[in-house]
Amino acid sequence: MDFEAYFKSELDAVRDEGRYRIFTEIERHRGAFPHATRYVGDTTQDVTVWCSNDYLGMGQHPVVIDAMHKVLDECGAGAGGTRNISGTNHHHVLLERELADLHHKEAALLFTSGYVSNWAGLGTLANRIPGCVVFSDALNHASMIEGIRHSRAPYKIWEHNSPEGLDRHLSQFGPEVPKLVAFESVYSMDGDIAPIAEILDVCEAHGAMSYIDEVHAVGLYGPRGGGVAEREGLMDRITVIEGTLGKAFGVMGGYIAASEKLCDFVRSFASGFIFTTALPPALAAGAAASIRHLKASNVERDRQKDRVATVRRRLDMLGIPHLPNPSHIIPVMVGDAHKCKRISDWLMDNHGIYVQPINYPTVPRGTERLRLTPSPVHSDGDIDRLIDALSDIWSQCELARRAIAA
Amino acid sequence: MDFEAYFKSELDAVRDEGRYRIFTEIERHRGAFPHATRYVGDTTQDVTVWCSNDYLGMGQHPVVIDAMHKVLDECGAGAGGTRNISGTNHHHVLLERELADLHHKEAALLFTSGYVSNWAGLGTLANRIPGCVVFSDALNHASMIEGIRHSRAPYKIWEHNSPEGLDRHLSQFGPEVPKLVAFESVYSMDGDIAPIAEILDVCEAHGAMSYIDEVHAVGLYGPRGGGVAEREGLMDRITVIEGTLGKAFGVMGGYIAASEKLCDFVRSFASGFIFTTALPPALAAGAAASIRHLKASNVERDRQKDRVATVRRRLDMLGIPHLPNPSHIIPVMVGDAHKCKRISDWLMDNHGIYVQPINYPTVPRGTERLRLTPSPVHSDGDIDRLIDALSDIWSQCELARRAIAA
Repeated sequence: MDFEAYFKSELDAVRDEGRYRIFTEIERHRGAFPHATRYVGDTTQDVTVWCSNDYLGMGQHPVVIDAMHKVLDECGAGAGGTRNISGTNHHHVLLERELADLHHKEAALLFTSGYVSNWAGLGTLANRIPGCVVFSDALNHASMIEGIRHSRAPYKIWEHNSPEGLDRHLSQFGPEVPKLVAFESVYSMDGDIAPIAEILDVCEAHGAMSYIDEVHAVGLYGPRGGGVAEREGLMDRITVIEGTLGKAFGVMGGYIAASEKLCDFVRSFASGFIFTTALPPALAAGAAASIRHLKASNVERDRQKDRVATVRRRLDMLGIPHLPNPSHIIPVMVGDAHKCKRISDWLMDNHGIYVQPINYPTVPRGTERLRLTPSPVHSDGDIDRLIDALSDIWSQCELARRAIAA
Repeated sequence: MDFEAYFKSELDAVRDEGRYRIFTEIERHRGAFPHATRYVGDTTQDVTVWCSNDYLGMGQHPVVIDAMHKVLDECGAGAGGTRNISGTNHHHVLLERELADLHHKEAALLFTSGYVSNWAGLGTLANRIPGCVVFSDALNHASMIEGIRHSRAPYKIWEHNSPEGLDRHLSQFGPEVPKLVAFESVYSMDGDIAPIAEILDVCEAHGAMSYIDEVHAVGLYGPRGGGVAEREGLMDRITVIEGTLGKAFGVMGGYIAASEKLCDFVRSFASGFIFTTALPPALAAGAAASIRHLKASNVERDRQKDRVATVRRRLDMLGIPHLPNPSHIIPVMVGDAHKCKRISDWLMDNHGIYVQPINYPTVPRGTERLRLTPSPVHSDGDIDRLIDALSDIWSQCELARRAIAA
């Protein structure tokens, strides 16, 4: 087989569908987020990032940066080994305690990323519990789907955010069948939020374990940043809370928080936990500092809410359509792949505004969008420039405006 | 199902087999590697680490630490997004260029860990090439095995390091079948090295792609640290070279280096690449600095060779059995799980010497061992203390000594 020719033909097919991805190479400037320098060949451009998942700007917060500098000097760069072979650093242990406390769970277990925590966490539970059946929300993240597939456990997909749908699926299995229900709190593309209490009612009625992905919620929701489940007083009813250190906490890594035995079980059997180099101690220290800060401070969350509300209001005033949802994610709907890409390119080239176009297969065809994530670091001026530019391009593209609000 | 009771019973079973793992919590001291502080409850102990995979001590090298401090100040803590959505930092691009150059390949692709690079790299190639059959060395690492399993492609396991065995397996498939051969250069538990040229001869005879895992070799072997394949002048004959930034380079992360089209193909289709937050820019910069340094400097490699030879010679003088192999890994053979654990505990408690016991299932029963990894940061005094302690405990445990060398 001519492998190179095969790769080329597959890539050409992706290009023909308008789905070929080109990286936008940037350098964020600490202390000046959301501003960054974009690299294009030998030239550079000043840009404002409007699509980051560093939702609260914690990636430049002095408590995070200082903690990382300090531990980098104290412990060096890498961990030096896997968790079992010389790689368990004091700072991992401190971070796991911080996470267990954040979610009011007995224990927490760190992974190298949120992706790996879902893949290894769900994969290990589903694979290692004999006869386990997994019940997965239809819009679950790729990392959860891959973990479930990898486990080779039988699974059922229930209608997105539908406790009734979940109940119907669970009812098809007797009480002797071990059940694992997997869902997210905030779904990243539509920004909608799961009816967690109702889902937990159904799980409890069927004796199912509940596994919630709060990666787009930890740090952001709840009085201490414990996520939507904390805000709604539901953390103690959930079996496993999964989260990331790479979005609102501004660093990198993932985790699960659960009972001591469950964490110990995953720790003891998950290949993706055991056979990988541990997170650098400085990252663990930075994440712990970020979590501690957000447990006590509402400044960032309040300011974010204000920024999100402001952008929504300004979009409404112009009649630019965006999905109404109760989260911090603002999907500005374009509904056409080529227009979506064109708007994104035009915003970048003419205004230095960076919003990645979200096209199929990440979202269904006809729902192509620009996904805005306003954060505490976006100034009034940043918002003015975004709105002016969007208004301009919206007219140029002759995209339907909604009835002007107010 | 009573999940907690189930977890407990499974953990009890692991305990009964003597396989339950307890983390050794340490804090490495930058500038004083291999010395560290061990935490046990409320007490601490000074220890010397003899089982780290920070093989060259680059985790404390000033060029690495300085690069990380600098970029932490410039770009902040995390990358702020996935590679496709605002997370491609200038430092990722620079690092990928550095890696492509290291292996004389057209391109390189970063992953969050070596584990993920194998899992996603092999998994994507095997799954996405229609009809692909994988041929996997019998002792391949867990991350490769999981990637192959996850791909659901058919696979054959060939006898460890046997080009003849590989040839036999490949011969069972016609030239029209796409073939992917996966193996490692240095195997981490025995420290043996693959006959790469002979394996490549076989691959080429059958038109198979070759995929080599050099995680225990990059930085260490070859005039520029390109691995065993570089040392033997074979890099251009290999389709994919996979490596890690978390062992000899002292930081964290993994990668593949290959043709531009192959990297683009994996980049475009690998779920484990697409849907995960990118490495922090400071890690990328630290890794790039480490690679650049080791391309030009042989000081660390020479000093490591000397340390390895010294430890081997001293073990031989005492008749302490260790696997003869051509690598930097010294497996001191104990051959009994309980003795292995007891020796490790005794070395730690009485001498502050930290060597993790390696027992079943990581190695076959009856080949339990202490795996020593001497590095440039181990002083003559460190070696003296290790050898004296080993000699002492070897007598106490009445373990067979070999005929005294010389």
